Amino acid sequence: MAAPKVRIAADDLRDLVAGIFVARGARTDDASLVADSLVWANLRGVESHGVSRVPRYLELFDKGDSDPAAEVSVQRLRSAIVLIDAHTAPGPVAMTRAVHEVVAAARETGIAWAAVRSTVHTGAIGRYTSLIAEAGMAGVGIVAGVPNMAYAGGRSAGVATSPLSVAIPSGGDDPVLLDMATAVVALGRLAQMKASGTPLADGVALTADGEPTNDPALAAIPLPVGGAKGAAMSLVFELLASGLVGNPIVSAFHDGSPGGRRHRQNGALIAIDIEAFLPLTEFTQIVDATVTAIKALPRAQEDVEILVPGERGARTAATRRVDGVPLGPKVWDQLCADAAALGVPLPSVLD
Amino acid sequence: MAAPKVRIAADDLRDLVAGIFVARGARTDDASLVADSLVWANLRGVESHGVSRVPRYLELFDKGDSDPAAEVSVQRLRSAIVLIDAHTAPGPVAMTRAVHEVVAAARETGIAWAAVRSTVHTGAIGRYTSLIAEAGMAGVGIVAGVPNMAYAGGRSAGVATSPLSVAIPSGGDDPVLLDMATAVVALGRLAQMKASGTPLADGVALTADGEPTNDPALAAIPLPVGGAKGAAMSLVFELLASGLVGNPIVSAFHDGSPGGRRHRQNGALIAIDIEAFLPLTEFTQIVDATVTAIKALPRAQEDVEILVPGERGARTAATRRVDGVPLGPKVWDQLCADAAALGVPLPSVLD
Repeated sequence: MAAPKVRIAADDLRDLVAGIFVARGARTDDASLVADSLVWANLRGVESHGVSRVPRYLELFDKGDSDPAAEVSVQRLRSAIVLIDAHTAPGPVAMTRAVHEVVAAARETGIAWAAVRSTVHTGAIGRYTSLIAEAGMAGVGIVAGVPNMAYAGGRSAGVATSPLSVAIPSGGDDPVLLDMATAVVALGRLAQMKASGTPLADGVALTADGEPTNDPALAAIPLPVGGAKGAAMSLVFELLASGLVGNPIVSAFHDGSPGGRRHRQNGALIAIDIEAFLPLTEFTQIVDATVTAIKALPRAQEDVEILVPGERGARTAATRRVDGVPLGPKVWDQLCADAAALGVPLPSVLD
Repeated sequence: MAAPKVRIAADDLRDLVAGIFVARGARTDDASLVADSLVWANLRGVESHGVSRVPRYLELFDKGDSDPAAEVSVQRLRSAIVLIDAHTAPGPVAMTRAVHEVVAAARETGIAWAAVRSTVHTGAIGRYTSLIAEAGMAGVGIVAGVPNMAYAGGRSAGVATSPLSVAIPSGGDDPVLLDMATAVVALGRLAQMKASGTPLADGVALTADGEPTNDPALAAIPLPVGGAKGAAMSLVFELLASGLVGNPIVSAFHDGSPGGRRHRQNGALIAIDIEAFLPLTEFTQIVDATVTAIKALPRAQEDVEILVPGERGARTAATRRVDGVPLGPKVWDQLCADAAALGVPLPSVLD
């Protein structure tokens, strides 16, 4: 039988993660941003982008691919364009800075674009578009990374599972929140299916040799959602997120450039100031009426509720804020080991 | 045996379409914009968004759902936000105006958003993002329309097959051009499969009663690409394109609002001025290197070339600019009938 999960209060988990990052040289504020982003994902049930990533950041620090103390620099290139150079700072540090910059610019111009250059693991980008939505704006986010997904018609890692997120303020506490990978099944979910031995549907993944497979143990290369559609989305996200900041990842990966296969990411956030168009409450009434209409649609299966984007995650978060964040034994043991090695005290376990 | 196709020179076909629109009361310039957009789609092989739509526009004029002589109004809401109210003008008229406005604004601010309110049939939105790319900018476009696609978990038309287009300038004549519906298979392609009796894969469409079907003759409601992903994309496009201009389509369709089921569309275009970031030639070198890398990837099938977004359409257009635009007999006969009824002269047929 698998070892049981532990539950940790979200605040305690944030303190633990922040403590680990501070012990590795991050400034206190930056460490808190990383902890906020990772625990946000855990609260919403996106374990693959949560605190399970802590060891990976530490490894990137060890290899010199990321600098926990990097100072993010900000340049306003035009009234509605901000360039944030992360100088290899962790994604949550650079992306959260981008949120504040893009919202401030959009407040003036109505829409703004913040480009984030040369960061690592952004975590769940829904975190950043949600913060834009909290500021009363519509948020759009994309990230480009090192190829790990097949391009349509290809048999190797050609492009990345680059995500798209859109957050739209509603009249309630939670935005309508699209946060999707451009793969049929994201890598984190593939790993879960491998762990549980769940067979894969056709068109989900290739083996390391590029052959189609239904065996989760052999699945190595995820396939793009909708074939050419997901592949094309990933490609244009690369050209926008990486091309505009002059830091190409896909071409450098394939053409043998020095460091071309090193982990790195570029990202971009858009903020659209709703009040440029109409009063926010008038807009959120339209959002709420639309959500109501969707949820009332005739169902394919009578007992399966129709969900709007972000609804499931918001519900999970509401529960976990009260009950604590469940962590699998492997993730928890690794966090404990990292904390012990760095002299960071462990929080109490709820059960 | 099916009647053969005719071929018409692209310029002649434009003149024919423009003539029909002028005869129905459109200003000459506006009629040319419609003709340019529809023939652009035919040149690229997107017959479903080409001149086959002419009768549908005439029907919308007859019903009063579109006004061929409507004057589009333009308001600069913020430095980077333009609102184009189409007042039911045909989509190509309003969307092409939006291209010029959004490019002019982005030249100042770096990025701009043009919202198009209350238009009908935009045609292929890749047309408008391509025009933005011709101006040396990256273009993004979305359109929201009347529900015709199932939402994930639903069994009726819940949302629209709302498209997304992204155009990125390259070093060559043609941009990298993503132009995709949020359905697995767009309605136009479903109609072709019905005509040819091609069976549908699982997950492509429902019958009018909401049952899954593989029979193209029974397919009535397309399904969203990637299930929840395509449905969510369509929903957020509605909230952005329709919500921001205070002209909701999805909620009005479902809640029985007067005119809620009338054909109408809202759209939005984003232009991003590449020169705000780096010299255009430096950017297009990255684009070209990335395209080269993708095309050189190991292939799933050795004899099936890997294509980048827009490549197939650009090749078809190159051929058809020389050889003329092929039209099926049904489309051609209808155009001839409409032209005759309006006293518009017919062009010569190439074969």
